[in-house]
Amino acid sequence: MVCYKRRMPLIECVPNISEGRRRDVIESTVTAVGRTPGVTVLDWSADAAHNRSVITLAGEGGPLREALLTLFERAIDVVDLTRHRGEHPRLGAVDVVPFVPVEASMAECVELARAVGAEIASRFGIPIYLYEEAASSAARRNLEDIRRGEFEGLAAKMQQAEWRPDYGPSMPHPTAGASVIGARMPLIAYNVNLGTDRLDVAKKIAAAVRFSSGGLRFVKAMGVSLDDRGLVQVSMNLTNFEKTPIFRVFELVKREAARYGVAVVESEIVGLVPAAALTAAAQWYLQLEGFRGDQVLEQRLRTVAASAPSSGGAGA
Amino acid sequence: MVCYKRRMPLIECVPNISEGRRRDVIESTVTAVGRTPGVTVLDWSADAAHNRSVITLAGEGGPLREALLTLFERAIDVVDLTRHRGEHPRLGAVDVVPFVPVEASMAECVELARAVGAEIASRFGIPIYLYEEAASSAARRNLEDIRRGEFEGLAAKMQQAEWRPDYGPSMPHPTAGASVIGARMPLIAYNVNLGTDRLDVAKKIAAAVRFSSGGLRFVKAMGVSLDDRGLVQVSMNLTNFEKTPIFRVFELVKREAARYGVAVVESEIVGLVPAAALTAAAQWYLQLEGFRGDQVLEQRLRTVAASAPSSGGAGA
Repeated sequence: MVCYKRRMPLIECVPNISEGRRRDVIESTVTAVGRTPGVTVLDWSADAAHNRSVITLAGEGGPLREALLTLFERAIDVVDLTRHRGEHPRLGAVDVVPFVPVEASMAECVELARAVGAEIASRFGIPIYLYEEAASSAARRNLEDIRRGEFEGLAAKMQQAEWRPDYGPSMPHPTAGASVIGARMPLIAYNVNLGTDRLDVAKKIAAAVRFSSGGLRFVKAMGVSLDDRGLVQVSMNLTNFEKTPIFRVFELVKREAARYGVAVVESEIVGLVPAAALTAAAQWYLQLEGFRGDQVLEQRLRTVAASAPSSGGAGA
Repeated sequence: MVCYKRRMPLIECVPNISEGRRRDVIESTVTAVGRTPGVTVLDWSADAAHNRSVITLAGEGGPLREALLTLFERAIDVVDLTRHRGEHPRLGAVDVVPFVPVEASMAECVELARAVGAEIASRFGIPIYLYEEAASSAARRNLEDIRRGEFEGLAAKMQQAEWRPDYGPSMPHPTAGASVIGARMPLIAYNVNLGTDRLDVAKKIAAAVRFSSGGLRFVKAMGVSLDDRGLVQVSMNLTNFEKTPIFRVFELVKREAARYGVAVVESEIVGLVPAAALTAAAQWYLQLEGFRGDQVLEQRLRTVAASAPSSGGAGA
């Protein structure tokens, strides 16, 4: 069979829903979303303490839009925020929906977030806030600011002019609250483990490297104990690996640790990481000059396959 | 359109033909080979001084076999070794055909090399030698050993019992000689540039790191001058990046250079490199523990897409 691979650019989408305990409800929702043609469920996980589930989807813009319509329809049906309890702050049944560029540009993800946000607002009567790269103003970039007060404080918050939603009614949906939709860079969960049990050292290093206390712009960090191993950890989220790359974070942590006479035992990436983040580290450490992405064999294969029709699947 | 991506594992194939001067002949040959359904021409280049062309193909085993039948048919037709002159040693019209694993295993590449070799020998009456991972004995692993004496010495060499071909007649094809077919790891062309114009330093470092004079097992190296830049270069081929990884070669060159008070200015990769070679460097330098290949987002996408039928191309 000849298969023309005229592909639109791939986008990742990571909706968070406010249900993490009823396994059957979660699984049937993931199944329904995953049945959308052209959409792949890369991963999903439910957290009972948070009473929240995270689903990682990949697909082109059109199929992702379809999948989200299905997700909202189901979540509105099964989640009642007036009765929802959990440790994680939340505003709505579908709490937050970030679109993340994989092959697409950030501009395409922003455009998609706005189009899907407007459609969901009008179809389901749910107020929609745009955040991060899709935000309509600087005051709305941060998810934490939008979510402050949570579902319980939402009706009062929406009375304020500066908290009118970007789309939809100026009052919460009675059981589904409001949703936050936007576009952001992929987030990398990155930890560095130190050869000491001194938690104060990990906390000092975390404070030194994180943005909020004067460190690198796209780093969130805290110091934690790994009691079972007798080590401490600098636990981080890297929110823009292109502008604050992994290798610079690692080298800075290592340098700060040396100040306390502590060595780095190892580092770890939790969950998914874009290939470009690792390739950039290899380039930097190897002092590679003039390297182009299409020198990566697999990348060249994809580029050539995408630019020309080719026959597929018929291996003789 | 729904497209079932039940893919066989991808293999790279890099045939070298003994024609590098007649542009029309080379281009029509590349075009004919590239028309094979399921085969992609990733790259090709012709060298007039060597009078030799290198074509890089990718595809599944079946389509690659078809492409090679086309290539041999054409090359036998247009190349006459009795009149061929060029700087590069050669034995045949299609001189050497390595199969290189991309998604496939080395065992699958060896199997393919043997099957294709046997078929070409019987169809075209050309003696075939198997080399590298596909070799029938240790004495035949090295291409240089098989090719020693070249086309001009081939008839005499084939009289010796130890140089009977693996497939086909025990005498050269009158105009197309013999061909060497096999399977090998991807070869990485890797150079390190040093901040000095002292060629002796580059030569000493090359001797220190290359296998032939006591260095790392899968490194070939020589020292050369970059006259236009006033630098010298350790120019290398890495013939097995899994067993002798780039980062270890780089660190050893850097250490040897320091011995002479010389700094590394930069390094460079010429041509294609497998993603795994760069990922391994990132893992080593970042001291990443417990990292799995399927944590790379693009890898996960391919794995999930390959394991389930999905709809393609129909982006709404």
